[in-house]
Amino acid sequence: MPDIDHIGICVHDLDAALCAWRDGLGFRVADVCDLADRGLRVAFLDAGSSRVELLASSGPDSEIAGFLARRGEGMHHVAFRVADLDVALAAARSAGMMVLPGAGRPGAHGGRVAFLHPKSANGVLVELVEDHQAAAG
Amino acid sequence: MPDIDHIGICVHDLDAALCAWRDGLGFRVADVCDLADRGLRVAFLDAGSSRVELLASSGPDSEIAGFLARRGEGMHHVAFRVADLDVALAAARSAGMMVLPGAGRPGAHGGRVAFLHPKSANGVLVELVEDHQAAAG
Repeated sequence: MPDIDHIGICVHDLDAALCAWRDGLGFRVADVCDLADRGLRVAFLDAGSSRVELLASSGPDSEIAGFLARRGEGMHHVAFRVADLDVALAAARSAGMMVLPGAGRPGAHGGRVAFLHPKSANGVLVELVEDHQAAAG
Repeated sequence: MPDIDHIGICVHDLDAALCAWRDGLGFRVADVCDLADRGLRVAFLDAGSSRVELLASSGPDSEIAGFLARRGEGMHHVAFRVADLDVALAAARSAGMMVLPGAGRPGAHGGRVAFLHPKSANGVLVELVEDHQAAAG
């Protein structure tokens, strides 16, 4: 049974968003990092066994520039933790879901990740994150 | 520190969505119920200490009919569990966040809930759910 690894939220101004989520909503900031190759600056907030990921563009060619221009700020994706990515992807494909290119690449925290097309999951961009502790165990 | 109580996803066809999320993504269906006064049929899927809520309209005047017509299927809200709703709302208001009318009413599972305007939380409709076990303890 998958659990929620994190939810990803696109924001225009990461510093302003961090203030709101920390002071207004009470989240602890776990990590802020630059992912220069993806044009992103991201922050992770602790949320029990899950996290909230705030994503901002650090340049005009970021992965989320198109999303922000089209949709504005808001929910971008939901990531579920799975024990075995290959088993999870096989089940998704068997159910007719579309796996986006690049499945199996390492995610921000080392575990392998894959994305399912929003058309396959009721309009939600679903990320699957392999729990590398479970996978190694 | 809030953790994720559930994420809410609007869908057109609840039965088809349940098949996809159960067979394709491996979720266990915890509960399916009709909320006739809100024009909703909802299903809850177990996701570790969180849940995925799938919401469908059961009539033309449902709470989500406008959302589905405007935006189509997709992420509708994120709910965070807080120990004390009044404390959480005071902090949100102090940070300039806008609390929607109806704050403090009982949610689907009995605890008191409140919603923050998406403009206050980077485009995300945030629900706060009081953890009644924590509140009673």
